[in-house]
Amino acid sequence: MTAYGDLITSEREMQALAQVAGRLGWDQETMMPRGAADQRSEESGAMQAVLHARRTEARRGDLLAAAEAEETDAVAVAQLRHIRRDFDRAARVPADLAVALARLTCRAQGQWAEARAADDYAAFAPVLAEVVRLKREEAAAVSQDGDLYDALIDDFEPGMTAAKLDTLFAEMRPRLVDLRARALDRDWPEIDAHFHTDPQLRLARELARNFGYDFTRGRLDLAVHPFSSGSGDDVRITTRVSETDPFNCLYSTVHEVGHACYEQGIDPAFRLTPLGQGVSMGVHESQSRLYENQLGRSRAFTGWLYHRMRATFGDFGVRDAETFHRAVNRVHPGHIRTEADEVQYNLHIMLRFDLEKALIAGDLDTGDLEAAWNDRFAADFGYNVNRASNGVLQDVHWSVGLFGYFPTYALGNVYAGCLYRAMRGAVPDLEVNLSRGDPKGATAWLQSRVQQHGGRYEPSDLIARACGGATPTAGPLLDYLEEKFATL
Amino acid sequence: MTAYGDLITSEREMQALAQVAGRLGWDQETMMPRGAADQRSEESGAMQAVLHARRTEARRGDLLAAAEAEETDAVAVAQLRHIRRDFDRAARVPADLAVALARLTCRAQGQWAEARAADDYAAFAPVLAEVVRLKREEAAAVSQDGDLYDALIDDFEPGMTAAKLDTLFAEMRPRLVDLRARALDRDWPEIDAHFHTDPQLRLARELARNFGYDFTRGRLDLAVHPFSSGSGDDVRITTRVSETDPFNCLYSTVHEVGHACYEQGIDPAFRLTPLGQGVSMGVHESQSRLYENQLGRSRAFTGWLYHRMRATFGDFGVRDAETFHRAVNRVHPGHIRTEADEVQYNLHIMLRFDLEKALIAGDLDTGDLEAAWNDRFAADFGYNVNRASNGVLQDVHWSVGLFGYFPTYALGNVYAGCLYRAMRGAVPDLEVNLSRGDPKGATAWLQSRVQQHGGRYEPSDLIARACGGATPTAGPLLDYLEEKFATL
Repeated sequence: MTAYGDLITSEREMQALAQVAGRLGWDQETMMPRGAADQRSEESGAMQAVLHARRTEARRGDLLAAAEAEETDAVAVAQLRHIRRDFDRAARVPADLAVALARLTCRAQGQWAEARAADDYAAFAPVLAEVVRLKREEAAAVSQDGDLYDALIDDFEPGMTAAKLDTLFAEMRPRLVDLRARALDRDWPEIDAHFHTDPQLRLARELARNFGYDFTRGRLDLAVHPFSSGSGDDVRITTRVSETDPFNCLYSTVHEVGHACYEQGIDPAFRLTPLGQGVSMGVHESQSRLYENQLGRSRAFTGWLYHRMRATFGDFGVRDAETFHRAVNRVHPGHIRTEADEVQYNLHIMLRFDLEKALIAGDLDTGDLEAAWNDRFAADFGYNVNRASNGVLQDVHWSVGLFGYFPTYALGNVYAGCLYRAMRGAVPDLEVNLSRGDPKGATAWLQSRVQQHGGRYEPSDLIARACGGATPTAGPLLDYLEEKFATL
Repeated sequence: MTAYGDLITSEREMQALAQVAGRLGWDQETMMPRGAADQRSEESGAMQAVLHARRTEARRGDLLAAAEAEETDAVAVAQLRHIRRDFDRAARVPADLAVALARLTCRAQGQWAEARAADDYAAFAPVLAEVVRLKREEAAAVSQDGDLYDALIDDFEPGMTAAKLDTLFAEMRPRLVDLRARALDRDWPEIDAHFHTDPQLRLARELARNFGYDFTRGRLDLAVHPFSSGSGDDVRITTRVSETDPFNCLYSTVHEVGHACYEQGIDPAFRLTPLGQGVSMGVHESQSRLYENQLGRSRAFTGWLYHRMRATFGDFGVRDAETFHRAVNRVHPGHIRTEADEVQYNLHIMLRFDLEKALIAGDLDTGDLEAAWNDRFAADFGYNVNRASNGVLQDVHWSVGLFGYFPTYALGNVYAGCLYRAMRGAVPDLEVNLSRGDPKGATAWLQSRVQQHGGRYEPSDLIARACGGATPTAGPLLDYLEEKFATL
């Protein structure tokens, strides 16, 4: 047995434990009885302690060093790159801090859900302050002398920095603001009808299947916040239902299906190894956003969906497929990121990016966060936040310690723009099939160009390879948005 | 900090991990997508490896020895007794074997479910042979020079042996056989109606609540085999539904509620410590069987249930409460243990006890098990097994390595007999309240006499204390059965 072989055997066990810990998170948001929260916090803490101990144990470092010294093939080099990054990062975070963070965020998530239901940011602020404090400690440990926030971004998007994102967002903002002004000037159709929960969920399942989600290796449940969880053969998604807004359920499902298909589509040879997960959150979001928007909200696909929804819900007051397409893509004032149209979505992200950057830099106190959010929102969107659940409490992320995660949504849109441009040149009959409700040509292209590779290539390299070599930029996304929304 | 304090801190983490592993088992039978079975096998194996490493680590042994040398109170003595038993047992089982067993039984359970659905014992026999082989290895490691089967029983019922059970069963068998002959001679009413799934499940939830199950710290789901899982604040139960036999769902729910109330009723001070679980399977079964039979199938309670079922399902062809009571307690030929009446139930256990004793002794080959089962069944019951799912494949236990578990069901009945005798003398208005559908007086008595103590006292000692000092015997159970079934 080589050191590399021993190392991978041990990594498989660790990945298996990480899957168990992930499923515990899924359970917490879908199945857990509410009285179990305190006990669950101890359970999650114990799992994180085990994982942290495994990630940092001396034997892992020794095996890794020995494996790096062996002659290895390209896949092994990629595996070792991931293990090295993970080991070095984990070794810098004290075990006590890792356990404290796991316990705290478990508790903070519960308090966030309660505060959100009560529209009471003040009830959430103290625990969020604790989360920020520990995340700063963690970032300081990881970054050594570098930037705290960059250290956190790197967790989700290796190689990305706040400076690069500043540049990217500065390029995107004026074209998006300009496009929004033109779009908001027009009238958009609104749907005013009632859509029962059960048929919505049945249709969501149908869409999930059509987009390639394999229910024999996954399941769909309800949760407060839609998410995808797990890798390999057990990849579960959640959705939520509003009986007045069916797109909430349907498009959040298609979005999570994008994430889930990425995980389900990875080469089975990588299962339960470091290469067996999506390579970054940005690439992950590129899949989910492309499924949701470039495919799911296309004129071709919405033409099919319109007739499918008529068959499901009867007449819901939309007279034709063209009007339906405009309703699906309605550019409208609104507070909620997950309900934002494609034009304004990235502006929501930029707001969060700047606020969390300031929180982690220590330039913004959690006690002032709600006011800062509300001021910034009014400045960026031109109207006020009316309640905390429509503002600072709308997203789960910060409660569970996800700082540096939000910008990957915008990055995912940028990657999706590049992939969609390449896909349109490569997939025959794309529009024709979408107009029949069949996105399989597109999803198969993504599976072969992106998904199957798992963690094999670095994010930006992966997208460049998939698109024929060009380094990803915001151009294709902005061109696509302008082309779509200029005429809509 | 004392050694005892350090030890308990470490035990809490281990108990938390054991809860996570247990919930993984619950997930496997209720939520897991079927394509995830292989991956789950690796995940379960990894969790078992972690738990086994924790149970056997040298530091645990050192802390334990140091804690045993300290001055401690009675609760600490009980904690240390559990830890010592667990440490010594775990230390004897090689880590490889523990992992192999976890992985194998995970796979075997899936194969059992498939074989059972296909009525094909031959498809299950090879993997069962592997399970038996590894359980024998495990028993040999644990027992050192002692009896293999006794070593396995001790896992579920500390202090119990096959010899004691032989004596107990020899005492019980003639009185049960005699009672059965007299009961089968009479005509029993049968219910021939259709009962929809949803109202059955609603009524099952109502019964669960009435019997004291706390849904804020638990949940009820469907599974192939009803079970209860977890301790403390997250205790989940499952049931199954037959639309022609409502008692399958209702009484399996009340049964599992007995288990779950035991776990939910333990002193919260013991949560996530060795004393924070039911002390033995026998005591566990005493709770579930007492809830199900002595309470749930009493004349008083079935009188209430009859009217509740009429309100739920309309006229289902049973003319009065007396007939309903006889239908609930119908003594009838049948193959299935979980559907057996109180008279014959223990005869089903004796069959399994003798067969598994022979399997573990090496006197019976798994290749011959189906024939042995069928021969023994014909001898004990007077008619033949018609298919494997009504015979050797009906129970999940052996597939998951539970050898030595079945006799604890009969032992639970014996304990339940003792507890019920004591309860009748102690709980005022027991019958009156049961006739109003309210078993809370009885369950509160059990909570204070048995459940709250968790692992505090040894099984036989616990029952004796609860019953005012008498060592448990089969007498009260047999007297109760004869009194009930002689006149029914």
